Amino acid sequence: MLTTLLDSIHDPRDLKKLSDSQLQTLAQEIRDFLVTSISRTGGHFGANMGVVELTIALHRVFDSPRDKIVWDVGHQGYVHKILTGRKDMFPTLRKLGGLAGFLKRSESEHDPFGAGHSSTSISAALGMAVARDLRNEDYHVIAVIGDGALTGGMAMEAMNHAGDLGTDLIVILNDNEMSISNNVGAVSKYLTRLRTDPNYARAKQDIDHLLRHLNNVGQKMTKVLDRAMEAARHMILPITPFEGFGFKYIGPIDGHDLRQLLPVLERVKELKGPILLHVLTQKGKGYPQAESSEDKWHAWPSAAKPNQAPSYTSVFAQTVAEMARKDERIVVVTPAMLSGSGLVKFQKEFPTRTFDVGIAEQHAATFCAGLAAAGKRPIFAVYSTFLQRAYDQTIHDICIQNLPVVLAVDRAGIVGPDGETHQGVFDIAYLRTVPNMSIMMPKDENELRHMLYTAMQHEGPVAVRYPRADGVGVPMDEPLHALPWGKAEIVREGRHLTIVALGTMVPEAVKAAERLAAKHQVEATVVNLRFVKPLDEELLLSLARTGRPILTVEEASLAGGMGSAVAELLIDHGVMVPMRRKGVPDHFVEHGGRDEVLQRLGLCADGIVEDALELVRQAGQVQHALNRVGT
Amino acid sequence: MLTTLLDSIHDPRDLKKLSDSQLQTLAQEIRDFLVTSISRTGGHFGANMGVVELTIALHRVFDSPRDKIVWDVGHQGYVHKILTGRKDMFPTLRKLGGLAGFLKRSESEHDPFGAGHSSTSISAALGMAVARDLRNEDYHVIAVIGDGALTGGMAMEAMNHAGDLGTDLIVILNDNEMSISNNVGAVSKYLTRLRTDPNYARAKQDIDHLLRHLNNVGQKMTKVLDRAMEAARHMILPITPFEGFGFKYIGPIDGHDLRQLLPVLERVKELKGPILLHVLTQKGKGYPQAESSEDKWHAWPSAAKPNQAPSYTSVFAQTVAEMARKDERIVVVTPAMLSGSGLVKFQKEFPTRTFDVGIAEQHAATFCAGLAAAGKRPIFAVYSTFLQRAYDQTIHDICIQNLPVVLAVDRAGIVGPDGETHQGVFDIAYLRTVPNMSIMMPKDENELRHMLYTAMQHEGPVAVRYPRADGVGVPMDEPLHALPWGKAEIVREGRHLTIVALGTMVPEAVKAAERLAAKHQVEATVVNLRFVKPLDEELLLSLARTGRPILTVEEASLAGGMGSAVAELLIDHGVMVPMRRKGVPDHFVEHGGRDEVLQRLGLCADGIVEDALELVRQAGQVQHALNRVGT
Repeated sequence: MLTTLLDSIHDPRDLKKLSDSQLQTLAQEIRDFLVTSISRTGGHFGANMGVVELTIALHRVFDSPRDKIVWDVGHQGYVHKILTGRKDMFPTLRKLGGLAGFLKRSESEHDPFGAGHSSTSISAALGMAVARDLRNEDYHVIAVIGDGALTGGMAMEAMNHAGDLGTDLIVILNDNEMSISNNVGAVSKYLTRLRTDPNYARAKQDIDHLLRHLNNVGQKMTKVLDRAMEAARHMILPITPFEGFGFKYIGPIDGHDLRQLLPVLERVKELKGPILLHVLTQKGKGYPQAESSEDKWHAWPSAAKPNQAPSYTSVFAQTVAEMARKDERIVVVTPAMLSGSGLVKFQKEFPTRTFDVGIAEQHAATFCAGLAAAGKRPIFAVYSTFLQRAYDQTIHDICIQNLPVVLAVDRAGIVGPDGETHQGVFDIAYLRTVPNMSIMMPKDENELRHMLYTAMQHEGPVAVRYPRADGVGVPMDEPLHALPWGKAEIVREGRHLTIVALGTMVPEAVKAAERLAAKHQVEATVVNLRFVKPLDEELLLSLARTGRPILTVEEASLAGGMGSAVAELLIDHGVMVPMRRKGVPDHFVEHGGRDEVLQRLGLCADGIVEDALELVRQAGQVQHALNRVGT
Repeated sequence: MLTTLLDSIHDPRDLKKLSDSQLQTLAQEIRDFLVTSISRTGGHFGANMGVVELTIALHRVFDSPRDKIVWDVGHQGYVHKILTGRKDMFPTLRKLGGLAGFLKRSESEHDPFGAGHSSTSISAALGMAVARDLRNEDYHVIAVIGDGALTGGMAMEAMNHAGDLGTDLIVILNDNEMSISNNVGAVSKYLTRLRTDPNYARAKQDIDHLLRHLNNVGQKMTKVLDRAMEAARHMILPITPFEGFGFKYIGPIDGHDLRQLLPVLERVKELKGPILLHVLTQKGKGYPQAESSEDKWHAWPSAAKPNQAPSYTSVFAQTVAEMARKDERIVVVTPAMLSGSGLVKFQKEFPTRTFDVGIAEQHAATFCAGLAAAGKRPIFAVYSTFLQRAYDQTIHDICIQNLPVVLAVDRAGIVGPDGETHQGVFDIAYLRTVPNMSIMMPKDENELRHMLYTAMQHEGPVAVRYPRADGVGVPMDEPLHALPWGKAEIVREGRHLTIVALGTMVPEAVKAAERLAAKHQVEATVVNLRFVKPLDEELLLSLARTGRPILTVEEASLAGGMGSAVAELLIDHGVMVPMRRKGVPDHFVEHGGRDEVLQRLGLCADGIVEDALELVRQAGQVQHALNRVGT
């Protein structure tokens, strides 16, 4: 791989020295670098291949870090990272302690705003632009947002506000005709028309010609026609939704043609007010296999592992299909995560019962509530981290009305390489405080099936959370059956302590218990909690009343999580017993391999053994006294 | 007051028997009824006066409950309640056990979907319409949404999805040219043009005339002109943002003229696909004092109480102004709650530093993050219940980046007459699980001032929560100073138990302690916790280690709230002490007077006395044993 030019770029300023043809060569070198690098490390691929020329052009025309370039989501920021001095870190991409997969303020002065979730860039950029004006400073603020992200309501909220303020702000619509899977919605159709209808490209000039021409003839025209022309002029003004929002619309232009990009960006730089520049790019550009695939290689495909247990995601999807065949009330709603949620096949089998609403979590939740209010049994397939965006709607539209919506909360717990922005660790705390909500997590992929079935039998909201992981490899028992509601399961009995484990931590707790018995002569009872809400109060209290210490283990935030619920229970019932909580501590968890990160947090058999031993030791001295208290 | 006609309406079907002129008379009777009734009970006024004719027309043309009418927010649903058999309950409006101020599924079969927060109706209605189609049923679904609510991103998400699906769905835009205060944003400006520009009203027909006329002459025209005409036709199609979303746009029509409303609704009823009917109404219509006031009497004004302590809201606003005079970095952001947050005066003094972003909480939070990232010190003035809508942005844009944004969380705790949808009881649970977030609540209005100042000194996100209530009436000490970070305050000492109280519960705890001492010879230590996060671990642990029982009291959800945080602390440190938690239990709290509701929940001096006595009694027997454990 020849990267002669690329090797000379240590800072965006170095781009200013290159000729236009050198920039073209640089683009090719960057593509080669991306292919080589991402094929080794994995990571987001298609989107980055699509913005090579755009990123080069932005850094050539603008002056980062003085000018602020805000990348929406940020997974298309690899080229930006390469051009801003981080090329040599690419072998560590998304690895523990290595380069982040998204942009991060703490990583570089060229990252003025971090992201990971979609549709935030216009809001953030507008904030910066307003701050600039209030401080009488003089720099450009540019938000780069994908067409998929535009369907997110907050992007529209931000455009509405920006148009109202009239602030100098450049929004670049990176239109690759799809977000992660095919794009959804009327706005998308609208963009397609802008892109494909040759009339649009010429329309403005032509209308002007038309009106000017008619004006010449117009002396002889009737008054009605005059008035109509005036109306036409008015009406033609806000011709795109963006202009309706008060933006000046420019485009569409070819985002792979530096000869178009560079002069247009130079011109845009001089314009006042909010500008929307519509740039057409192709996801996966320059890598034929990606270009021709359906998802344009959103991420570099991972090699198939032999004899792998099915992922929780795929078991979810199969189970939903199995249930949907028997219960026609079942419908599935996803916010642009059809593929990520494993639902591509489901959609093929049930096209009229699958609703991909686009990146629109708020709408998705209330849409589910509406479906449920009219007799359907919707399943909202959503990642834990994205459910945060539908929190109010979950409370206000689903839970207050106690509607039977099943939240299939995927990517719950540690997500691995995506890092801070995508960890699914808060859902237990933010959901269990909401009345009428029930929360479950399965110990393995087989239990997930029955939990989903159990959830569907319940006449109220239920969240079933499961990890971004392969299953344990257990056999699947048939047929689907309902688990006892609100009941935990004792998977092992032992007299020295009780380990209350949730979901993924159950197999770890069992392993730990076996080691404790074999190596340390400590016998642990292991509880598969199943339900965080309603808690199996009866079982937990009876176990606590034995006086044995309790260790809770969960893949969720300690503050307000499952262990917190157990602590509340014991304290409310005056049952005092030594207790320890394992979970995710009070800091944002960085990217890295999922298992590595779990190990580091002690959320594994080894960590459980360690804590169990310490707890049993500490408890020894208080045990005797407590037993006599006789709560 | 003559309500002869109104008294004959017990069900919407009764409307079908009335003549058009009788409907006109009915409208007047309803207005008289509203004025008489709301002047006695209080409640939302302006919006209801504005929808009298629209509601009559809807119930005349459609068949509720078969047809589903979904009212956005629902505070404009009084006329709907009157016409659906709930007129006689109006004396109990918003009172404990009485008629709710919003619509509620549990209250009537004519309320197919409840609400209280804005912008949800299109999502819910679309869900119902889709369910109808899947079940091959045949009824109409109508969402009635205000112009203010349209700035909420989820309304746009829903329109985008509805336009994509092409489902039969009627959206009525009730455009009263303002939401609660003046409307914000480019969409609002757009609506104004639709409303006021006479060209718009005629434009479509005229353009059609024009094009038809030109076609006749067109034979002689150049090819360029032909193409331009074609383009014009294309371009004219999606002339409103609604049409851009795939909706058929009809309007604007006069929402007070039944002779327009009835035939247009009859026509709309027959149309296919998503329809947007733009109806112009006047908030406060028919009550001159309301019509001429700035907020159109959104709520019936409450009588001034003499010698009243200032409200927390007003102290917040004054303090922010005081700080803003000295620190030009301070800016204030509100999501359409300028008046509710007490910021009208602030805006007058600092017009360029006040940002009303419209009903757009998601954008508001990230806009704050952008401002902070560029060196400003934004204060996000938001109600606890509405902050739920910016939860993801608070985590993702503010907290992960650890940006200094102050969340001024108004209406925290029990809100009173607004009921379930507006209770501010979840914020502690959902905020304290988020790393980098700090949370405070003041014991009185003077402490609020210093807390706000303290928050401004902190280099990270801080939430200061305060109630919808008047202050305690304490003197204000000058000047503003920073409270010791993360430190609680002991306001009273006693040897029998410790009461850990938060915010509004501190004065109640002090009263309770005085009664406990005077009547029961029980001496309580009272802690003004000040910080829910970071907790004053040192003080709490040292108090717990005395072995005295602990009673926590807070105006927040027990599941995950402050008491839960204290329980976590004690358990994590192996300090076992009898403990009890007072707060909001695990059900949605209905409407009623704030003090009544607090009494009912035992969140008052009496309730604290009762629990304290029981706790001390229960603790007596375990106390001795525990002391000897020597944790």
